[in-house]
Amino acid sequence: MSILEFYFDFSSPYGYFASTQIDELAGKYRYHVDWCPYLVGTAMKATGHQPLFNTPMFHDYVVTDVPRFARLLGVPFQLPESFPLVASAASRGYYWLQEQDPELAKKFAKCTYHTFFGEGRDISKSDELQKVAVDCGIDADRLIEATQDRRIKQLFKSKNDDALTKGVFGSPFILVDGEPFWGADRLYQVEKWLQSGGW
Amino acid sequence: MSILEFYFDFSSPYGYFASTQIDELAGKYRYHVDWCPYLVGTAMKATGHQPLFNTPMFHDYVVTDVPRFARLLGVPFQLPESFPLVASAASRGYYWLQEQDPELAKKFAKCTYHTFFGEGRDISKSDELQKVAVDCGIDADRLIEATQDRRIKQLFKSKNDDALTKGVFGSPFILVDGEPFWGADRLYQVEKWLQSGGW
Repeated sequence: MSILEFYFDFSSPYGYFASTQIDELAGKYRYHVDWCPYLVGTAMKATGHQPLFNTPMFHDYVVTDVPRFARLLGVPFQLPESFPLVASAASRGYYWLQEQDPELAKKFAKCTYHTFFGEGRDISKSDELQKVAVDCGIDADRLIEATQDRRIKQLFKSKNDDALTKGVFGSPFILVDGEPFWGADRLYQVEKWLQSGGW
Repeated sequence: MSILEFYFDFSSPYGYFASTQIDELAGKYRYHVDWCPYLVGTAMKATGHQPLFNTPMFHDYVVTDVPRFARLLGVPFQLPESFPLVASAASRGYYWLQEQDPELAKKFAKCTYHTFFGEGRDISKSDELQKVAVDCGIDADRLIEATQDRRIKQLFKSKNDDALTKGVFGSPFILVDGEPFWGADRLYQVEKWLQSGGW
């Protein structure tokens, strides 16, 4: 089975939108999706950009566009009061889980996204992340411990470095056999690429 | 007939892509397209962004994405050596023509885009703009004069100010009854909005 790399930031609503569709889309063409949470902020050191929500003009657009996009997809959405945040803890928890059980890690990622953008709860807080863990049948205390574990921190840092090396700078950012696609609007191009092998 | 406002920068390949589709798309729903060239650089003073082509990481993506997008749409494309440029002269020529003959102005805009991105010729040069004029049956000398005319310069400045006031910051950027859509990937959402009156 071929691999599609799905880079996203847990603090990105467009990443959330893509996360609700990517597995089904890729599965149709017998691609397995490798979910790769990272911090878009890492790339922003190189690009000089700020989160759109904190950028003049883009802010007003995002506030209109994001709920409108959610309604179009029919996915639950509310803009969290804590948006945008640095999603290191959730990402580290994900990679800790992935070492043990990749499918459970993916379930955790989906549940984390739902908690943040579907319910507007602050996933940078340990108690919220513990609730996510419990909902997924994960040992909540061990998960929180892992988010502070030195080895896991280093693992997550290396995942961010990998993303930078591959030229990944946005969320969602998808690599199909090395071919880059940036943005939740590009899933139709990703699908066409999977279907036809390029154009 | 209702009006769809189509903001674009003659130096934007994504604006070029949208320009090849927008009239046909809008016409299906009995919308008339008001073509509004402006300088994205005006908004960049507010957003602090640089052209993507001049931004680390984005640059490499754009170099892959833009020709790939052109192939998907089946439109002629080559990245001009003079890309990106400040497209003031072409934009002023457009507004001068629009005062006299809006349809001819639109023809000039399409021909200008084709000259720049379809043939890779430098539309910031008077002789290239003169050729565009001749191809469209426009008095080339008068057009070049108009691009230096004080009143036309002021008119173009006011169009840029209007764009800023309306929150326009990208290319293409489309307003449908005040609803904003940014990007060549959003034409499917524009179409859905025209079709359904919103969601």
